[in-house]
Amino acid sequence: MKVQLLLTPHALDHVDLEGKTVVVIDVLRSSTTICASLLAGARGVIPVAEPGEAGELRAKLGADASVLAGERQGVKIENFQYGNSPGEFTPETVSGKNVILCTTNGTRVFALTAGAESVYSGALVNISSVAEAVMAANKDTVIVCSGREGGFSIEDTLCGGLLVDHLAGRTGGGVTLNDAAAMARLLYRDRKMSLHDAIADGEHGRFLASIGFAGDVGVCSRVDAMPILPILKEGRLVRADGV
Amino acid sequence: MKVQLLLTPHALDHVDLEGKTVVVIDVLRSSTTICASLLAGARGVIPVAEPGEAGELRAKLGADASVLAGERQGVKIENFQYGNSPGEFTPETVSGKNVILCTTNGTRVFALTAGAESVYSGALVNISSVAEAVMAANKDTVIVCSGREGGFSIEDTLCGGLLVDHLAGRTGGGVTLNDAAAMARLLYRDRKMSLHDAIADGEHGRFLASIGFAGDVGVCSRVDAMPILPILKEGRLVRADGV
Repeated sequence: MKVQLLLTPHALDHVDLEGKTVVVIDVLRSSTTICASLLAGARGVIPVAEPGEAGELRAKLGADASVLAGERQGVKIENFQYGNSPGEFTPETVSGKNVILCTTNGTRVFALTAGAESVYSGALVNISSVAEAVMAANKDTVIVCSGREGGFSIEDTLCGGLLVDHLAGRTGGGVTLNDAAAMARLLYRDRKMSLHDAIADGEHGRFLASIGFAGDVGVCSRVDAMPILPILKEGRLVRADGV
Repeated sequence: MKVQLLLTPHALDHVDLEGKTVVVIDVLRSSTTICASLLAGARGVIPVAEPGEAGELRAKLGADASVLAGERQGVKIENFQYGNSPGEFTPETVSGKNVILCTTNGTRVFALTAGAESVYSGALVNISSVAEAVMAANKDTVIVCSGREGGFSIEDTLCGGLLVDHLAGRTGGGVTLNDAAAMARLLYRDRKMSLHDAIADGEHGRFLASIGFAGDVGVCSRVDAMPILPILKEGRLVRADGV
């Protein structure tokens, strides 16, 4: 199995996804929010790139059947019901509904995954579930770090590195890594005893703390705290176990 | 001093270079070729993005006063005199002339550095010279890894990490690093005893070997083998010492 990690979505321009497993990672915070929403009983999470697109989609789906969530510069988009804090997504707010999610970095990546065999949403909170699915599929795999404003982000790279560590460790040497995957694994192994601090001390972690979301950084740093598997089906992320 | 490392040039879109020191790194191979050319007595190296632009520039400068060099997919561009192997640039081929250099990754980055206080070309072969200049300037510094086809490259990140290690080590704690700079330094420290192997085993190193340029990888991996300082002056890289 070839495992290719992309530090930013730009690199997707040069990768053929045909027949491959793809994992989209945006630890802070959309990948974690996706897990929280599905765990809270949302019917699905529909990732969109722009607020206008989100509004049109809600009009189409019906206001009772869906909620608008997302952020720009980290804070809730005007006229949206929710922001991008995982804690906002509870059975009371989203059970039985579609969450239309529009974030700066993560949600726009899903539109770039056409042709892939399977597309999963990966975060620290569900990384072992994702690793199990990737290994079961046993196909060449592309891990896409959403990054931050087009650049590298330490939290997505750490999460990708943990996934690489799972894959390379458990499949007994039958895995080849690209350079970025090897580097991400090195970074993860260097920081694994202090993941939360590494993320909180990072650029995005400090930014979120500065606007009042330090608590979100804590929630998003808990490895395997939300053990579910979001898979993309016809533009919507749903639980792969069909619950 | 703030030191910001960019793993790919894409990230330049989000960085204000005003008043800063910029170091452009493309270890394999344009940064090394630039050093080789200036060491061989070239008057200057003019980095350009496209072959057509290179041809027009040569017509303007005169065929006697300049040579065309560069690559696409690693091999010499048709009708150009030289490729992008550092060994091609000797006193016999370039002394007293301008080298118009057009490569896939590195040379196009210089056009994106407008507004910077100073722009240097950095490679492993001249990294200590660059580090000295950056420290003497004592301004916020942006290290731009050219990468490969828009993505991360291990050799540029290793070289950037070595530069960060110089800066952070010698200035006694007065340096703050962005997340990518800290990761690059970690990578360098992990691989510093086997830099050549890390580069030769990387994606770009293997590609160059596959098309017959394994020797170039060796030349480009020799730390401080060409201790000169190329600085950008009006679109042309010249020796900062004026030789």
